[in-house]
Amino acid sequence: MKAVVYTEYAPDDNFAKILKVQDIDEPKPKADEVVFKVKVAALNYNDIWGMRGQPVPVPLPHVSGSDAAGDVIAVGDDVKNIKVGDRVVSHSNMSCRVCKACTDGREFDCVNRIIWGFQTGPTWGAFQEVTHLPEVNISKIPENVSYDEAAAASMTLLTSWHMLVGRAKIKPGQTVLIMGGGSGVGSFGIQIAKLYNCDVIATASPDKLDKCLELGADFAVDHRKEDWHKEVRAITKELAKKKGEVPGV
Amino acid sequence: MKAVVYTEYAPDDNFAKILKVQDIDEPKPKADEVVFKVKVAALNYNDIWGMRGQPVPVPLPHVSGSDAAGDVIAVGDDVKNIKVGDRVVSHSNMSCRVCKACTDGREFDCVNRIIWGFQTGPTWGAFQEVTHLPEVNISKIPENVSYDEAAAASMTLLTSWHMLVGRAKIKPGQTVLIMGGGSGVGSFGIQIAKLYNCDVIATASPDKLDKCLELGADFAVDHRKEDWHKEVRAITKELAKKKGEVPGV
Amino acid sequence: MKAVVYTEYAPDDNFAKILKVQDIDEPKPKADEVVFKVKVAALNYNDIWGMRGQPVPVPLPHVSGSDAAGDVIAVGDDVKNIKVGDRVVSHSNMSCRVCKACTDGREFDCVNRIIWGFQTGPTWGAFQEVTHLPEVNISKIPENVSYDEAAAASMTLLTSWHMLVGRAKIKPGQTVLIMGGGSGVGSFGIQIAKLYNCDVIATASPDKLDKCLELGADFAVDHRKEDWHKEVRAITKELAKKKGEVPGV
Amino acid sequence: MKAVVYTEYAPDDNFAKILKVQDIDEPKPKADEVVFKVKVAALNYNDIWGMRGQPVPVPLPHVSGSDAAGDVIAVGDDVKNIKVGDRVVSHSNMSCRVCKACTDGREFDCVNRIIWGFQTGPTWGAFQEVTHLPEVNISKIPENVSYDEAAAASMTLLTSWHMLVGRAKIKPGQTVLIMGGGSGVGSFGIQIAKLYNCDVIATASPDKLDKCLELGADFAVDHRKEDWHKEVRAITKELAKKKGEVPGV
Repeated sequence: MKAVVYTEYAPDDNFAKILKVQDIDEPKPKADEVVFKVKVAALNYNDIWGMRGQPVPVPLPHVSGSDAAGDVIAVGDDVKNIKVGDRVVSHSNMSCRVCKACTDGREFDCVNRIIWGFQTGPTWGAFQEVTHLPEVNISKIPENVSYDEAAAASMTLLTSWHMLVGRAKIKPGQTVLIMGGGSGVGSFGIQIAKLYNCDVIATASPDKLDKCLELGADFAVDHRKEDWHKEVRAITKELAKKKGEVPGV
Repeated sequence: MKAVVYTEYAPDDNFAKILKVQDIDEPKPKADEVVFKVKVAALNYNDIWGMRGQPVPVPLPHVSGSDAAGDVIAVGDDVKNIKVGDRVVSHSNMSCRVCKACTDGREFDCVNRIIWGFQTGPTWGAFQEVTHLPEVNISKIPENVSYDEAAAASMTLLTSWHMLVGRAKIKPGQTVLIMGGGSGVGSFGIQIAKLYNCDVIATASPDKLDKCLELGADFAVDHRKEDWHKEVRAITKELAKKKGEVPGV
Repeated sequence: MKAVVYTEYAPDDNFAKILKVQDIDEPKPKADEVVFKVKVAALNYNDIWGMRGQPVPVPLPHVSGSDAAGDVIAVGDDVKNIKVGDRVVSHSNMSCRVCKACTDGREFDCVNRIIWGFQTGPTWGAFQEVTHLPEVNISKIPENVSYDEAAAASMTLLTSWHMLVGRAKIKPGQTVLIMGGGSGVGSFGIQIAKLYNCDVIATASPDKLDKCLELGADFAVDHRKEDWHKEVRAITKELAKKKGEVPGV
Repeated sequence: MKAVVYTEYAPDDNFAKILKVQDIDEPKPKADEVVFKVKVAALNYNDIWGMRGQPVPVPLPHVSGSDAAGDVIAVGDDVKNIKVGDRVVSHSNMSCRVCKACTDGREFDCVNRIIWGFQTGPTWGAFQEVTHLPEVNISKIPENVSYDEAAAASMTLLTSWHMLVGRAKIKPGQTVLIMGGGSGVGSFGIQIAKLYNCDVIATASPDKLDKCLELGADFAVDHRKEDWHKEVRAITKELAKKKGEVPGV
């Protein structure tokens, strides 16, 4: 099967030079693994870091890609909830699953956690025709979500959710500032904060301000302007006044 | 000043017989108290329990009423954040403020907690022209809220909020069942659960079903029907299927 | 290798009749498994329930035993922290590891959780010369703990710890009542509550009262006496008085 | 009655010059206040800061002192749990009791919180023959605790408890480092950490090392030595090894 492979880094950012479409072996599932045909894969910044070999020298030869969606074609003997034919999407955080953090439900704190398609390999990522992951790194795609949407959402949505819901524990009525509302993480941040009925201020470059408002932001501030922070502060004060609170307290 | 007073109970529910409009002394503020002119007062079930003398023999002569909104006309020397002229609403839970529960932020667990206008007295409640409360039992009314709305909301809204937000800790995406969505507590329950972006099923008698939907309930079920619970269960299953979850788990 | 096997239940409690020492195949490790030579295995009530076939009809032919300690003789390819030669002890709770509860750190709430040596099989438990478990169900035995101690502690200690520390969240200075301080779970309960510097009242039958005190209980009450609860209540009151608290509040 | 009063600051630390024993009026209790005869008062660093007028210009004329123990001689009409004759000790944190933080049980976060005998006045502190405090700032002294012990403990013990138990949430088996184990806060820190069955490393100057060990510290390190931190690190590693953990993780 085909895969996008590179066998050397491109510290000069000349990525076209190193990327080759090559044949690699199609994976067979380990006992706890799911093998699926990749229909859509998404790009992340770590794909660029990988090609640069900086700040992490990824394994070579390398297949990049940390977000993939597709159809299951094989499952290992110990797989419990996924079956051939399921529409699935990857979750790229691979933790050891046996340390204290992992068995406490804080897999994000696992010291051996790695990102699939970035720190894995040689040749194990999303940019190959068929790929494989442990069942715990696979989710079924709901009926009303497309492969495109699923692949685009996985890493960014979960990063944003973890920050806002898992860590910041946002609540209805709070004011949330999304710095960079035009990014992947930021655009999900706007939507998550609105799901929680927060008042959302998003910052973005001028060409993305309308998109932020369209996604639900109540205010969009041009962060290319030098005094963007004063504008944010003024909005915050106005909101706090309405809600009978002191801003920043 | 005038007050609605009763000096005996009416275990036969003949309340008209015992209620008298009488003159009582206008209150002067203690050091930590706020005195306000009552513009609106609301009714609660405990007003009926008080007149019955059951299950709590309230102090006699009694002025009932646990929800009042009005304008501040005097404040005690130690009052910190409320001033004459403020539009205010009562909070009827009076706890001791010195026990372990109170100083831990769990005033609802104070064993000496009493309800103002119910367990207080003689002659201390909302149904008098001028009344008084400690500052901690007084909130300012936001500009966009009327006296009527404030008085109608206080006990029911806070009861509902405490149940759904304080105790059940509802989260966006959860399914919430409001039993009795036509009641005071229930109608706020619908709105709070929607504020949290939950899916809301409300039960009510047939004449209140439209009101439940109008307040935001996603489903309204006639709880006079014998098999109302089957209908609720069916909706729950349908929602769970959409969300990829097992109902009741 | 040898194992203690039974191929039918003994609802009449005539266990001697069904237990046979037989040869079964020695296990080979799956990718995530550890294989160890059993030096010590401990008994639990579920061993009796298994032989009765009540309340759970365990798989037949059955090898019982949910606590084992011994030396590792082989590990699967994906095992991370355990190596051949390690002194190890079993943890008998086997959960699915892929459901919401498991990935939330609440493996005890996994609906597919089973007890090793009880619900597993055919022929998979502690009462065999060599046995095997996933790495996540294996702990290294600290140097100053014997095989005997480790095997005796696993199920009872963790049950007690989960109850007192995980659920009840005991704190220094609290009064803890251990019902059945002479049992496995109870004797660890006494020690855990003392580790947390609680005041411990243990109940037991007369012949075990001294043992409870020896393990650290501050009070030991004979629960064969009809009015044992009055004695416990009196101790509680006395302790509360010393600590300036109301008992039971 | 007599009080130790100063009417000007001593930025040159010549405190003897400004301290005068003077007659001031004996206090009468407000409705929520307790008046008590001071038998013992303790010293804190804020007494020195007050005399310096730095970093807080305390009210003048000033009576200092934030820890007092004595016998109740009068109570206000609304006092609930304290009566004349009670042996009591002060709690010097005075918060507004009506803000969001206070009514949430986080009085330590009250923006209007002040320290009694430091930010209060003119002439209101512990160094006067009779003093007064709101009931919520008064605790009864347990029978087996002397006035001396109570007065010495109040501010330092509660500071230490709040840090270790309230914030750090220490648990049995953890390693706790007490920097300055010879101080008031530090010496209680050692004892609290041992109450929680932690392993305690205390640092102190050479003449206080024995005292730290006597109070229960498992290790005492001379923090006048340049490489004291290496010694602490070595102990931590040794402890972690025993407990099968990685230090600092």
